[in-house]
Amino acid sequence: MVTKKQIAVVGGSELTAKKEDLSIAFNLGKALIDNNYRIISGGKGGVMREVFKGARSSKNYTDGLTVGIVPSSSISEANNYCDVVIATGIGIARNLVIINSADAVIAIGGGSGTLSEMALAWQMNKLIFAFNTEGWSKKLGNTILDNKRTDKIILIDSIDELIEKLHKKLK
Amino acid sequence: MVTKKQIAVVGGSELTAKKEDLSIAFNLGKALIDNNYRIISGGKGGVMREVFKGARSSKNYTDGLTVGIVPSSSISEANNYCDVVIATGIGIARNLVIINSADAVIAIGGGSGTLSEMALAWQMNKLIFAFNTEGWSKKLGNTILDNKRTDKIILIDSIDELIEKLHKKLK
Amino acid sequence: MVTKKQIAVVGGSELTAKKEDLSIAFNLGKALIDNNYRIISGGKGGVMREVFKGARSSKNYTDGLTVGIVPSSSISEANNYCDVVIATGIGIARNLVIINSADAVIAIGGGSGTLSEMALAWQMNKLIFAFNTEGWSKKLGNTILDNKRTDKIILIDSIDELIEKLHKKLK
Amino acid sequence: MVTKKQIAVVGGSELTAKKEDLSIAFNLGKALIDNNYRIISGGKGGVMREVFKGARSSKNYTDGLTVGIVPSSSISEANNYCDVVIATGIGIARNLVIINSADAVIAIGGGSGTLSEMALAWQMNKLIFAFNTEGWSKKLGNTILDNKRTDKIILIDSIDELIEKLHKKLK
Repeated sequence: MVTKKQIAVVGGSELTAKKEDLSIAFNLGKALIDNNYRIISGGKGGVMREVFKGARSSKNYTDGLTVGIVPSSSISEANNYCDVVIATGIGIARNLVIINSADAVIAIGGGSGTLSEMALAWQMNKLIFAFNTEGWSKKLGNTILDNKRTDKIILIDSIDELIEKLHKKLK
Repeated sequence: MVTKKQIAVVGGSELTAKKEDLSIAFNLGKALIDNNYRIISGGKGGVMREVFKGARSSKNYTDGLTVGIVPSSSISEANNYCDVVIATGIGIARNLVIINSADAVIAIGGGSGTLSEMALAWQMNKLIFAFNTEGWSKKLGNTILDNKRTDKIILIDSIDELIEKLHKKLK
Repeated sequence: MVTKKQIAVVGGSELTAKKEDLSIAFNLGKALIDNNYRIISGGKGGVMREVFKGARSSKNYTDGLTVGIVPSSSISEANNYCDVVIATGIGIARNLVIINSADAVIAIGGGSGTLSEMALAWQMNKLIFAFNTEGWSKKLGNTILDNKRTDKIILIDSIDELIEKLHKKLK
Repeated sequence: MVTKKQIAVVGGSELTAKKEDLSIAFNLGKALIDNNYRIISGGKGGVMREVFKGARSSKNYTDGLTVGIVPSSSISEANNYCDVVIATGIGIARNLVIINSADAVIAIGGGSGTLSEMALAWQMNKLIFAFNTEGWSKKLGNTILDNKRTDKIILIDSIDELIEKLHKKLK
């Protein structure tokens, strides 16, 4: 029995993430740990690093709350803020491991990588939140990706709103 | 040395594909074999079946030109028009195996599954064609998914146009 | 930077593990946590469950030290002693994710599943320990699997010996 | 409906395969095509190349009968005798894709890579043949890997014997 709800945070790498995204990611990481969640990310740079940096700044942070799932077969590929590193060795197919392991998926901005993760999350019937910030999260927020589901990707304007809706949906 | 260019065709399953998509898929399958390509698909129903049915109707069809890459570990899960079946056993992560194995990816309509395949194809730097038919292929045709590439997803209005552009790009 | 060395423990499921294996697994789990390691397993029954049960009995146990990597895409498939669950969705290809994520691999008895994990660990150049207990761990202990490596699989007679050698090799 | 039985041939790469293995692989490839099978291999060097070279020397060879399943995401990684290339992008987890796609698995000699493939084939309940030639195929021929199955890995002394037993088992 998994001891905490596992929340995946997806968004741009150091090459694509905007300054605003990084700031949201940091504050989101802190808020998720403040509120007793475990965080999963792709374990690399940009949003994936900031969300874990924020996590470690929470007063509730303890070892084991940040889990990085990286593409390569090498543990050392992960960013410096991962407590646990899963070295999948399966390349970008690791995106699916991130999604499958999540109770909810939160997207912040993002390019084609984030888009593929949101599409996979939809296919796997995961609860999806999308921050209202430039990129695929804004474009797909408040929409459906196809008719297989009756709910929508939930557009989010603030971290407080996110935490409140997360509590409600996951309890 | 792979003996023929390998073309992936992606689109809706029997649950999501529209009648028009199935008709395009059949004619596309025939045209691709007429023009000496090998075809790769997800090996299940809908567009994935019709494109192989069309392939077998070509006068140039010979055994080995239709390759179905299925999610489960069971060869028998494939549709009846696959010559070669790759039973990946890795679930929908097989989408990436389809994309990686392709010299070009052609999308016809499609829901969230097709969307994830188009996004993965963009990430993997594959040449992408999108038919101008309701669904993600129409929505993303003639657009970029992020700034990592300078080319666009190529919007296609007819099979003749597709074949002509495919020849030009892959020669 | 991963905060602790990650040790994979592999062995029989509830169907194949012998009573002795389960007892070793429990005591090994406790000893690994006593000695400040994080434990990775396949997250199912038998050895995979007992090692985590033992982990939780350690006075040094805190949340986040047991990581179960399961084959299916469902978090709920994991045993009740996993803190973190990685739901890979890639079937038994998940064996490789376990191996790649490990600083060292410890085998206890085991059938064909354990054998494949030991062989993969050898291929991936991982440090391998094998308990001297009926099954593939005993058979392969103190041997080489091919000429690609100059070291041997290290045969282990007691948990104290294991911990001592683990410290020496991983420091 | 897959048009031909798909036979996986596994064995050493150019680094590990012995001269005798390469000669068996070539003759086996020819015999399998002579007898109307399709061949699957890891698509790289050594046994994987020779079996496809032999295949192409058969009078029954036509395009599409040799399928190489490679670890990387690049089609061009395959040897020059693959008709179809599946570029999985999932690293050595591709071993499982080879096994899952096979109606029967034939091992020739081999080191740790072949060992992991034989163990995975056992786990996936595949029919396994092992040539009586130095390496894991000889060591495991005529044995069981655990008690989950009641049959044995079938030890094979000649290609004629292999073809005869293959016909009998797969019809």
